[in-house]
Amino acid sequence: MAHRTWGGRFAEGPDALAARFNASLPFDRALWREDLWQNRVHARMLKEVGLLTEEELEAILKGLDQIEREIEAGTFPWREELEDVHMNLEARLIELIGPPGGKLHTARSRNDQVATDLRLFLRAALDELLALLLELRRVLVKEAERHLEPLYVLPGYTHLRRAQPVLLAHWFLAYYEMLKRDAGRLEDARERLNESPLGAAALAGTGFPIDRHLTARELGFRAPMRNSLDAVASRDFALEVLSAFNIGQLHLSRLAEELILYGTEEFGFVEIPDAFATGSSIMPQKKNPDILELVRAKSGRVLGALVALSTVLKGLPLAYNKDLQEDKEPLLDALATYRDSLRLLIAMLPGLKWNRERMWQAAEEGFALATELADYLAQKGLPFREAHHVVGRLVRKLSEEGRALKDLTLQDLKAHHPLFAEDALPLLRLESAIHQRRSYGGTAPEAVRERLLEAKKEVGLA
Amino acid sequence: MAHRTWGGRFAEGPDALAARFNASLPFDRALWREDLWQNRVHARMLKEVGLLTEEELEAILKGLDQIEREIEAGTFPWREELEDVHMNLEARLIELIGPPGGKLHTARSRNDQVATDLRLFLRAALDELLALLLELRRVLVKEAERHLEPLYVLPGYTHLRRAQPVLLAHWFLAYYEMLKRDAGRLEDARERLNESPLGAAALAGTGFPIDRHLTARELGFRAPMRNSLDAVASRDFALEVLSAFNIGQLHLSRLAEELILYGTEEFGFVEIPDAFATGSSIMPQKKNPDILELVRAKSGRVLGALVALSTVLKGLPLAYNKDLQEDKEPLLDALATYRDSLRLLIAMLPGLKWNRERMWQAAEEGFALATELADYLAQKGLPFREAHHVVGRLVRKLSEEGRALKDLTLQDLKAHHPLFAEDALPLLRLESAIHQRRSYGGTAPEAVRERLLEAKKEVGLA
Amino acid sequence: MAHRTWGGRFAEGPDALAARFNASLPFDRALWREDLWQNRVHARMLKEVGLLTEEELEAILKGLDQIEREIEAGTFPWREELEDVHMNLEARLIELIGPPGGKLHTARSRNDQVATDLRLFLRAALDELLALLLELRRVLVKEAERHLEPLYVLPGYTHLRRAQPVLLAHWFLAYYEMLKRDAGRLEDARERLNESPLGAAALAGTGFPIDRHLTARELGFRAPMRNSLDAVASRDFALEVLSAFNIGQLHLSRLAEELILYGTEEFGFVEIPDAFATGSSIMPQKKNPDILELVRAKSGRVLGALVALSTVLKGLPLAYNKDLQEDKEPLLDALATYRDSLRLLIAMLPGLKWNRERMWQAAEEGFALATELADYLAQKGLPFREAHHVVGRLVRKLSEEGRALKDLTLQDLKAHHPLFAEDALPLLRLESAIHQRRSYGGTAPEAVRERLLEAKKEVGLA
Amino acid sequence: MAHRTWGGRFAEGPDALAARFNASLPFDRALWREDLWQNRVHARMLKEVGLLTEEELEAILKGLDQIEREIEAGTFPWREELEDVHMNLEARLIELIGPPGGKLHTARSRNDQVATDLRLFLRAALDELLALLLELRRVLVKEAERHLEPLYVLPGYTHLRRAQPVLLAHWFLAYYEMLKRDAGRLEDARERLNESPLGAAALAGTGFPIDRHLTARELGFRAPMRNSLDAVASRDFALEVLSAFNIGQLHLSRLAEELILYGTEEFGFVEIPDAFATGSSIMPQKKNPDILELVRAKSGRVLGALVALSTVLKGLPLAYNKDLQEDKEPLLDALATYRDSLRLLIAMLPGLKWNRERMWQAAEEGFALATELADYLAQKGLPFREAHHVVGRLVRKLSEEGRALKDLTLQDLKAHHPLFAEDALPLLRLESAIHQRRSYGGTAPEAVRERLLEAKKEVGLA
Repeated sequence: MAHRTWGGRFAEGPDALAARFNASLPFDRALWREDLWQNRVHARMLKEVGLLTEEELEAILKGLDQIEREIEAGTFPWREELEDVHMNLEARLIELIGPPGGKLHTARSRNDQVATDLRLFLRAALDELLALLLELRRVLVKEAERHLEPLYVLPGYTHLRRAQPVLLAHWFLAYYEMLKRDAGRLEDARERLNESPLGAAALAGTGFPIDRHLTARELGFRAPMRNSLDAVASRDFALEVLSAFNIGQLHLSRLAEELILYGTEEFGFVEIPDAFATGSSIMPQKKNPDILELVRAKSGRVLGALVALSTVLKGLPLAYNKDLQEDKEPLLDALATYRDSLRLLIAMLPGLKWNRERMWQAAEEGFALATELADYLAQKGLPFREAHHVVGRLVRKLSEEGRALKDLTLQDLKAHHPLFAEDALPLLRLESAIHQRRSYGGTAPEAVRERLLEAKKEVGLA
Repeated sequence: MAHRTWGGRFAEGPDALAARFNASLPFDRALWREDLWQNRVHARMLKEVGLLTEEELEAILKGLDQIEREIEAGTFPWREELEDVHMNLEARLIELIGPPGGKLHTARSRNDQVATDLRLFLRAALDELLALLLELRRVLVKEAERHLEPLYVLPGYTHLRRAQPVLLAHWFLAYYEMLKRDAGRLEDARERLNESPLGAAALAGTGFPIDRHLTARELGFRAPMRNSLDAVASRDFALEVLSAFNIGQLHLSRLAEELILYGTEEFGFVEIPDAFATGSSIMPQKKNPDILELVRAKSGRVLGALVALSTVLKGLPLAYNKDLQEDKEPLLDALATYRDSLRLLIAMLPGLKWNRERMWQAAEEGFALATELADYLAQKGLPFREAHHVVGRLVRKLSEEGRALKDLTLQDLKAHHPLFAEDALPLLRLESAIHQRRSYGGTAPEAVRERLLEAKKEVGLA
Repeated sequence: MAHRTWGGRFAEGPDALAARFNASLPFDRALWREDLWQNRVHARMLKEVGLLTEEELEAILKGLDQIEREIEAGTFPWREELEDVHMNLEARLIELIGPPGGKLHTARSRNDQVATDLRLFLRAALDELLALLLELRRVLVKEAERHLEPLYVLPGYTHLRRAQPVLLAHWFLAYYEMLKRDAGRLEDARERLNESPLGAAALAGTGFPIDRHLTARELGFRAPMRNSLDAVASRDFALEVLSAFNIGQLHLSRLAEELILYGTEEFGFVEIPDAFATGSSIMPQKKNPDILELVRAKSGRVLGALVALSTVLKGLPLAYNKDLQEDKEPLLDALATYRDSLRLLIAMLPGLKWNRERMWQAAEEGFALATELADYLAQKGLPFREAHHVVGRLVRKLSEEGRALKDLTLQDLKAHHPLFAEDALPLLRLESAIHQRRSYGGTAPEAVRERLLEAKKEVGLA
Repeated sequence: MAHRTWGGRFAEGPDALAARFNASLPFDRALWREDLWQNRVHARMLKEVGLLTEEELEAILKGLDQIEREIEAGTFPWREELEDVHMNLEARLIELIGPPGGKLHTARSRNDQVATDLRLFLRAALDELLALLLELRRVLVKEAERHLEPLYVLPGYTHLRRAQPVLLAHWFLAYYEMLKRDAGRLEDARERLNESPLGAAALAGTGFPIDRHLTARELGFRAPMRNSLDAVASRDFALEVLSAFNIGQLHLSRLAEELILYGTEEFGFVEIPDAFATGSSIMPQKKNPDILELVRAKSGRVLGALVALSTVLKGLPLAYNKDLQEDKEPLLDALATYRDSLRLLIAMLPGLKWNRERMWQAAEEGFALATELADYLAQKGLPFREAHHVVGRLVRKLSEEGRALKDLTLQDLKAHHPLFAEDALPLLRLESAIHQRRSYGGTAPEAVRERLLEAKKEVGLA
């Protein structure tokens, strides 16, 4: 019988296990492009300041080109026993070009090397995410515009109870605003992390006459970092990035949750495109919003990554400690999660089919327009709290009688309060009521159109 | 016998329990100043747009003044059954001035009201924290300067093993850099949250002719928020603030950990001032660094707060849900923790007594200067990796013989590699070795002095 | 204008701040009963082994009685400058009875004292929670029974899409099972933590001839702990308790979420009793499930507490460190949260009004019975995967035609597959279909009744 | 220049991305043995109850054998487009044996299938971890015994300040106790999760006449789960396992931290074996405790996994949701982390070289024996608090004079308090002082030997 046995694993000796436990190659391989770039720039700088000859530099650059080709072709001889991407590249370089390869590590340590690679990598990743966020904001803007003519209205919810009708366009633009701030956080993080640790060496700087401004400039960094201990020991930039991912993914989880709800048989507001839904192995009628469920769930994963790295850094003395090696996996995982979630929503949102009639009906029936009546009385001079009580009694009565607001006649209204007059009646019709909330940022079509125009300009669509 | 019985608590009926569970007054009372300010501004705006008469406005403002006096005097009749600070103030206002008090809630909901208060509160809190961070950075700068003449040197550590000597001033400035970025994060968060939700009403805006730009301006906000759903439903600003606190407190935990270590009998580098240490109830000789231990530990608390609010927001549909009430306690607790930790370090750091001799000895003995020798060989043309091996063998040999680097003669050196010459000997003396690492951001006194001057300018000390 | 100023706080000097930061009295006061109990037992033991005289013991016990009366009467002079509950009680004892009071601390340290109090406190708290869990399970059992006659059926959901009908009783019993395991975890934690640290002294035991078995026995502990270092340094018992609370509160969050959903206008399955709902300040028609929303949200708080304490313990050397003082607040907060949530659900669940018709209709309409047809074909010999495809096509066709399963005639069925016969028709009626799933643990009324009977026995209701 | 471009990834179309996002095969492949076992048992049961013929069963079993061989040989055609391990095995079975393969899924859903596999997998994993914990406890016991003759003493620390001397053996046994409880938690979790969800089908049970007791028994489960909704929707078993891992890994992080500290040049108590340390790329003299640093750091990772899954489950409605797919990666990762950490410590601890002299000296010098004097006075009748004050003054005086406790003469003592007599002098010598703390669980050699004997019996070494 096929019981699980762990024998295979146990065959691994403690030394092999220690080596595997130590090795970061399985995940820091992802940094190979950055490491190559850094190596080239570092080599050129060493030559500029006289630590390499012209010939040594040429040999090194040729060797690095060769390595790049090998990696891209999948023929590079990765060796886990060399522990990490840096040693793999360096060892191969020495194999390829001999002694000059051994000079490349002059005035550098793995401590500043890995910090440099990671910052370069994250900077590029943030640029990609910013492009995706811009794209998703464009999608939101387009979807908002597309549902203004004819007007799509849905019940706005508080406490998941119908509260007041809102435009679907308004709802789209609410997420637009969140994502705009999410992008702002990524931009701030990008700006803050874009400085160069290279040249901090192990922790104290170096006695070699290096030019840190040159390498910083060539790698596109704003400036070299000003303190060598800080340069190799700090990971707040990684925490800041993870914090921004966490917030961003939480916003996506809220959007996903709403779409899952709106897609239930009970709500019936929206249909998920087939490409983003799956069937059931036992229930032929099911169409499951798997992608949205995963986007929602994966906010746990991103938060977990943030907690993991925060815990690693708690109480960690300066400067470099091996603990810091635990920075890459949570970052890479959270990054991939957030990126894929964004891409999937970009692809999915335009395919959503919104059921205008069901939404309209849901927004109109029940008592979602009751506030309009209270506001009406308040406008006529009744203190707001009193207006609230009057309409509360009215709603309770209708509710007991099984009637809806739109069934009310002027007589009914007057019976509840003498301030009600003819001009209260349109408030009970969704079409006219929705036009009421014209305040800045409100849901009236005019107000929404103005905000939409601004948003279009921001994302280059107008 | 005094067993614990829970009887008292059980006497509380379910309704009372529900009321207590619901009530936010115990913690949102902290927002009373913000609520008063908002009320005044909202009232003035209502009058401007014609929703209040001059007389009503005056009555309201007078009532609010009275309430302020009562709260400050401790005579305000707080009632938990009114659930929150907003209802307490409003109810009292109506008691004091009658019907006009009931008009103050016109065109406003608790949803936008609480979001407005919280942003005002956090903005002020961030300003306070920024002032504290500036103060702590000043302390770090002063401490750095104070330990440059005479020169204080300590072993720089990697993996908590002595690696290379660094200046104590350099070490102080490493934390300066971290705190500067921490301040940057708070500034970015402050800027992003400084916009006004007021006027978003429950979730959809309002039909009243309010002027949201006016209230935003008067409350010092950059602008009114552009989307009413977003204004009442979003708490990313709170998450961003908590994320920044988390990173900041983690930096403090690293500083605390180092000071705890450096203060052990074993390290013996520093003595904690009595005011920040405590004794033992059973061990008369103990002097315990309690404050530092708490600063270290409390990073758990701040991270916990961030996790708590993140989890609350996961998958939460728009717009307002009662779940959002869970935002205030983690925020207030994390804020107080971070603020107190900063204030304590500001007070404590100048009182630390650094033991120059023990540090010097620790930095000089052992092999913390070995890298200098390897760098020396590399400078003479030996490929870095080879230089490394040569010195590695040298260290191993000395170690077996129980000798230290400073015991080496020129003969010894030459026996290990012919490239060693007379000029290698000074590298084995701490005083001269420390001057080697002159690279930008390095630990050489000249390099540190330059960075120190920049830092002094940044914090207004030069 | 009423801006926030932090002046008041800043007036506090650094020493006062340090004292406040250090003090645990505000939260460890909660342990006063345990501390009194421990003091009495410790004193009696000291007398037994000859370290106190009969007279000294009597004086101490009298003094402790006096203290108990003072605390209960609210007249005890708590002093924060004495830092914690232990020193407050001891100082007061010395005030009351003079020198013998100073002997009570013989052979004891605050390190073992606080660990003892905390274990006693948690043991009692766990007992209370176990009683509440039992009570909630009774409620679930009663609600299950109450909705079996007449039969209440609701759609069972997967992916929040209607999948297959289930009995409401079955749904109640699902939560019963979860809560039974939650209770099991609390019991295991209680058993594991129920051993006595008392007598471990500061960290190394003591030279006094104390009798740790006696004190353990008198305090109801299983045994004294076997290692003094472990006794004062370990907090895994606190983590285990928090872990169990976290899982338990997550179960409650799932229950709360379902009730919130089922109570929406769109689902319409259940109505929340007024006592556990609140109104809206701006929307008179709203009835908001605030309590359920808070129960859901507060799982964030409990998880946050677990994260906080886990982070505190990460990398903490033995034995006692001040960091451990951070154990009590998360514990007390999580405990109160979980306890109140349980109590509220106990009070609320019996008041829920389930709308049998809406649920029935939702379970019957649509295609929740499609699996029955697939199973039917499989039973007739069609491989399951093929049966699945046949019914999938059938559902798609009906869906396009706007028809439901119950509209199908025998002819329709046969047109889709020749294996369909007369006996397939009842499967399309909810009443008969629900009786199909008779497998052990399935939702058929017979199966549910059996499980219900077992559950009733477990909770003493049968 | 080798900039990062994300082009490659972007080439992936949205459908492919959705498929990849959905697919669990990359991680649930780890469950293939469990899935095969379950398939065999399920098939035999289907035959027993008449849903399969003898021939169909034989064909299926043969097919499954073939699949097992293919997987072990590495020739199995895994296809990610089939999403998960279950569909891969089923599809291959149908390929191999035709229609009977399609009958295997009768009366089963992926929902109960995956829950069953996961429980089987975790049960085996827990068994492995329990074996490792037993092994590590044996190592601790042996190390404790090995350092009793001659006696190894080290300073016991509180607040990381020397407090009282303890035996190294006592210190080892402190961790023994923690690990014993860790094992207890795993055992409890194992017992609780060892019940069978198989046969719960999608969520409601099934109408097929299956025998869930038979399959439960054959798979080694205690019993079938009693509620089908609970069986497919609950993941508290996974949370409980992760919670236990979290606590266990935190204990290891404390051990690792202490060994890192004790191995510094400053403490100098212990040397890490070369196989578990690494060198530095820039500092030839370094010997870094990388493995211990990783063990310490990885507690962040395990806590992160617990947070991730907790967040996923927050507010998740019954029954199965795709969100639950996020359970496996945190579990597998945390499991591997904990397992490897245990194995590494098992291999490393016996190789530690403890420096008896340095430890002895550290324990004796300074004032770690001061408590003995206070206890002495208390034994002579001085109230403990007063004895404490007397010795406190004595220590302060010595400290100012640069003298140590062991330098005290009888005269010195008497000058401080008349109760001091000849028999106080041995207390100032470590050898005799350590024998004082004979209380149960104390650090005196006699006391430790007794506890050691118990521990040896518990782990089968005596």
